Amino acid sequence: MTQTLDATLAGSPARALVCRSCSARYPLAAQHACIECFGPLEVAYDERAIAAVTRQQIESGPANIWRYAALMPVGQAPASRVSVNPGWTPLVPAGALAGAIGIDAPLWVKDDSANPTHSFKDRVVSIALTAASQFGFTRFACASTGNLANSVAAHAARAGVPSMVFIPADLEPGKIITTAVYGGDVIAVDGSYDDVNRLCAQLADTDEFEKTAFVNVNVRPFYAEGSKTLGYEVAEQLGWRIPAQVVIPMASGELLTKVDKAFSELVATGLAVAPAGGWRVFGAQSVGCNPIATALRDGTSDITPVKPTGIAKSLNIGDPASGPFALETVRRTGGWMDDATDDEIREGIALLAATTGIFAETAGGVTIAVLRKLVASGRLDPTLDTVVFNTGEGLKTLDAVADQAKPTHTVAPTLRAAREAGLLD
Amino acid sequence: MTQTLDATLAGSPARALVCRSCSARYPLAAQHACIECFGPLEVAYDERAIAAVTRQQIESGPANIWRYAALMPVGQAPASRVSVNPGWTPLVPAGALAGAIGIDAPLWVKDDSANPTHSFKDRVVSIALTAASQFGFTRFACASTGNLANSVAAHAARAGVPSMVFIPADLEPGKIITTAVYGGDVIAVDGSYDDVNRLCAQLADTDEFEKTAFVNVNVRPFYAEGSKTLGYEVAEQLGWRIPAQVVIPMASGELLTKVDKAFSELVATGLAVAPAGGWRVFGAQSVGCNPIATALRDGTSDITPVKPTGIAKSLNIGDPASGPFALETVRRTGGWMDDATDDEIREGIALLAATTGIFAETAGGVTIAVLRKLVASGRLDPTLDTVVFNTGEGLKTLDAVADQAKPTHTVAPTLRAAREAGLLD
Repeated sequence: MTQTLDATLAGSPARALVCRSCSARYPLAAQHACIECFGPLEVAYDERAIAAVTRQQIESGPANIWRYAALMPVGQAPASRVSVNPGWTPLVPAGALAGAIGIDAPLWVKDDSANPTHSFKDRVVSIALTAASQFGFTRFACASTGNLANSVAAHAARAGVPSMVFIPADLEPGKIITTAVYGGDVIAVDGSYDDVNRLCAQLADTDEFEKTAFVNVNVRPFYAEGSKTLGYEVAEQLGWRIPAQVVIPMASGELLTKVDKAFSELVATGLAVAPAGGWRVFGAQSVGCNPIATALRDGTSDITPVKPTGIAKSLNIGDPASGPFALETVRRTGGWMDDATDDEIREGIALLAATTGIFAETAGGVTIAVLRKLVASGRLDPTLDTVVFNTGEGLKTLDAVADQAKPTHTVAPTLRAAREAGLLD
Repeated sequence: MTQTLDATLAGSPARALVCRSCSARYPLAAQHACIECFGPLEVAYDERAIAAVTRQQIESGPANIWRYAALMPVGQAPASRVSVNPGWTPLVPAGALAGAIGIDAPLWVKDDSANPTHSFKDRVVSIALTAASQFGFTRFACASTGNLANSVAAHAARAGVPSMVFIPADLEPGKIITTAVYGGDVIAVDGSYDDVNRLCAQLADTDEFEKTAFVNVNVRPFYAEGSKTLGYEVAEQLGWRIPAQVVIPMASGELLTKVDKAFSELVATGLAVAPAGGWRVFGAQSVGCNPIATALRDGTSDITPVKPTGIAKSLNIGDPASGPFALETVRRTGGWMDDATDDEIREGIALLAATTGIFAETAGGVTIAVLRKLVASGRLDPTLDTVVFNTGEGLKTLDAVADQAKPTHTVAPTLRAAREAGLLD
């Protein structure tokens, strides 16, 4: 697709795509890599337009990501939005969780399982597909570890646009069914997520897929901007204040960098206040797929790809494209990264559920387990306020906790049976 | 428990419990049946207090059920709320669904799968447990077909209160795991929901359970009021207008009567406008459990209990306590009821998903299937605006659609394999 976005006409503050490596500038179009150096492209904004946005303007908007439309590259006109209207998910105070793991300061869980298809991916897909629609694409597609597939298929169904989603064939059944139920094409690929992603990149270059938007390939710069709404919401929900510490799960590493970028923008424009001493960004991976955390521990910026294993499938990206940027963010802000075993992930899910009533998918278990480790190792300051991100829904990864989450008693339907089972003790 | 609620002190508009059969009045306490006639009790309000509530007051409230606190029996003080803060769920325009089934007027889906534990039960549990906490109960319990169990267990975890939930042993695995993960007691009872309910009524009368609040037994009058928030939200989201037609799934039949009651209150107080000719209420059941719909067809108000079968387990109440009131509501408003087979339920789930991006549990499939039948039979007017209620989440009843929602293709991770599979055709 060669269509470009007339940002001024659309009322968008976006002005160009800029290479994150060499700073080359390009028009706002369906392009994700720099022609000069093959670096990833990022949306650049008119700083004056961004600076003119007010808290009141945002607060009077809808209870979803579109309250931040004035800060987004697309979607200013409500009719232009291709969206299931995600966002404005709960920021849940988690005092009992804090107590259980030795945090003395306020702790919150940003619960993105509350989105329409129950993961943070609805945010990025809404921005990506709104852009794709502007660029004239007539089919929506993605490579996915599950959550993204759910979201793209649901967005396509709502918009009445055909979809084709590519998933590793060994995904959790819940994530396959929740994609296929929307009626689009679902392609199970015999391989890892990295294999699936590679196939999609090849398909995106064919003539047959010229009018197909791969949300995380050819409209990736727009896709990535959607993650910033998570950072905006946390700050607004804290009364336009950036928390001192955030703990964020990492797959590609992109989410972590975008939350940090959102905080920076809010502080630069005066919309939010930074904590004394700035904020620190912490990253969470599983032991089964820890290439970014390993690079941090090894003191390098070169990420060695791994072959992912373990139950945290939604984080299983063995060759994480934004890993170097995640490392830069964590080092610059004085944060840290750690990783969790499958057993620790399961314990993390159970601990979060029992203390907050939030049932997270395995990625959320990773983040809680890593939060716990960061406190134990002294990397995370237990006297500073902290926000931990749950990015997905436990109902999608039931198998992970099926063995531990069982009935505590089984009885016949009589008072005598209840008494014999000890229920009246 | 003999504690009563001092409504005036709490700022509550509630004034008494009143028998729905003989109108006997009782103090606001943990009582659900009339001592005179054994009829069910209902909360009665100070009409002047209700009439003083303004749209502006509601609109400036939080984006959850507590925006209607001034119309609720409990929860006026935020600190008094025992809640995961459900509500303000999306009202989704469903033009493609309307087109597919022959409706020419606006059609919306009120999507209560967006609640924290993904069913409308979070609404009733928040009101019931806030009342229970006021009355001094120290343990939360329920009999449940699954969704209620999820909600009570999650509420108890968030509040840090012990819980004991009773479920039929044959429930969907998703609903058992999602209850047990919160760490409370989960009692699997070898029997039907009606058996479970009977056991809970017996336990509630024992000394050992004196301080245990069964949300749908001893605090049922408060529990039931929570359903009204669904009606309030629909009206507010339509611009303070009652829709001409609503289609609502029935288990006990209570939800349907409470949505109607909510509409009546809003019109009586001038908060919302009724449609010309009034609104019509339609009820949906499955063929496997259709005692209320059968009574309507038979022209009687006597409901013959059934032994429930079929996949719509969350609606499988064979002896529905509020069935007579549901019949009265449907007859008075000029609505109708119908029932759906398991295959029709599955088709309903798929149709809703493909046209709106909403993945409903089996109860939602029932409602869509019945909507379709009501249009086909001419009972529902296709030229009037209609709201259909999805009360639960498809992820909880994956088995129902596992056979139909599968990958459309399986390929090796190569361009050649993709081409051979016809993906580039």
